Amino acid sequence: MGANSADSLSPAVAADHPGVSELFAVLAYGEISAFYRLADDARMAPTLAGRVALARMAGAEIRHFETLETALTERGLDVYEAMAPYEKALDDYHRSTHPSTWLESLVKAHVGDGIAADFYLEIAGALDPSVGTVVREVLAETGHSEFVVHEVSEAVRSSTKEKDRLMLWGRRLLGEAITQAQFVMAQREELTDLVLTASGDLNGVAALFDRMQQRHAERMAVLGLV
Amino acid sequence: MGANSADSLSPAVAADHPGVSELFAVLAYGEISAFYRLADDARMAPTLAGRVALARMAGAEIRHFETLETALTERGLDVYEAMAPYEKALDDYHRSTHPSTWLESLVKAHVGDGIAADFYLEIAGALDPSVGTVVREVLAETGHSEFVVHEVSEAVRSSTKEKDRLMLWGRRLLGEAITQAQFVMAQREELTDLVLTASGDLNGVAALFDRMQQRHAERMAVLGLV
Repeated sequence: MGANSADSLSPAVAADHPGVSELFAVLAYGEISAFYRLADDARMAPTLAGRVALARMAGAEIRHFETLETALTERGLDVYEAMAPYEKALDDYHRSTHPSTWLESLVKAHVGDGIAADFYLEIAGALDPSVGTVVREVLAETGHSEFVVHEVSEAVRSSTKEKDRLMLWGRRLLGEAITQAQFVMAQREELTDLVLTASGDLNGVAALFDRMQQRHAERMAVLGLV
Repeated sequence: MGANSADSLSPAVAADHPGVSELFAVLAYGEISAFYRLADDARMAPTLAGRVALARMAGAEIRHFETLETALTERGLDVYEAMAPYEKALDDYHRSTHPSTWLESLVKAHVGDGIAADFYLEIAGALDPSVGTVVREVLAETGHSEFVVHEVSEAVRSSTKEKDRLMLWGRRLLGEAITQAQFVMAQREELTDLVLTASGDLNGVAALFDRMQQRHAERMAVLGLV
């Protein structure tokens, strides 16, 4: 955690910080874009069970979107107007990490979501509890990592070629995610300020990205990608 | 309602009728296929609000699927095996009613779901309450008809051409739905028997289709398609 983390006496970022609405908005658009990405990727599912697994994950994204919509509405904002500034960066992330196989789409669903969750949960630790709770709720595991871990680790156990390919894929996901996270942060001054305040300073942000890299490696290892 | 409807002293179809699991299975596959149909159709949405509206409806289908999965598991069945016999008929329905415009996809989401709900709710009236409750729960309005009614009735108010086109589309949806309903019923003897028992006899089934046609006309009228 950064300099002003959850264990401080008072949260670094107050509930009325103008970046909070921006944070909710980027998270909300993230849920919608993840929904459609999962629904699209399901075309590659080799079995009905695979298609259902992705549909379930997508369904969870919608529940999370609705939580964020409520939070934004309570702040007097229109969810569509609030999300608009973030459409491009998130759409670009998905366009630049378009999976070409079923296994790539599973790794992306799991690892990509994990990277995003690491970033936002670090920030959540420095937010006023009323705000941090919303962030944690919408980043809760969609509860289907078991399916992904099983499918991917089975596949890479029997194929070194598949394993090498997916390891490169994971590295690319991390790189693109960090690039896009920087674009997202730079999108709005209020959001940049929130992230800086939550991390302490620029060194805190760099340390945050280091921790994200570490957790990414651990997550890849669970999939057998080590 | 048919001869053995909800107002009888005891339900016409007992909870352990072998057709009950079949009914749950066809409903479950219906939710999954509706999920992917909505996600696909969202490509035609002219606005982010439209894309979100369809994502929400799709999210509701997944919640309903999960209810049916639980009901099937409690009956000792595997949801994927149970759904398999119904994949073809439902996929054929969607293939034969592929919308080519955003308005067609909205009318299909609303009117198509309505036709299916009419059919199943008629049957539900004759089922043991423990079973009827599950059926009613998964056919509950996904709560977004307001969006569809608004979009469609606005569009047809200003264009007679669009109105004529969508009226034909609605008629085609009804025709295809009834054709596929007959295929679905014929798929499994247990299901045919359940529908016949619930409706009383073949005359009861014919009367059920008449009532469905009537309700379809009312639904079209609400959309301004009259």
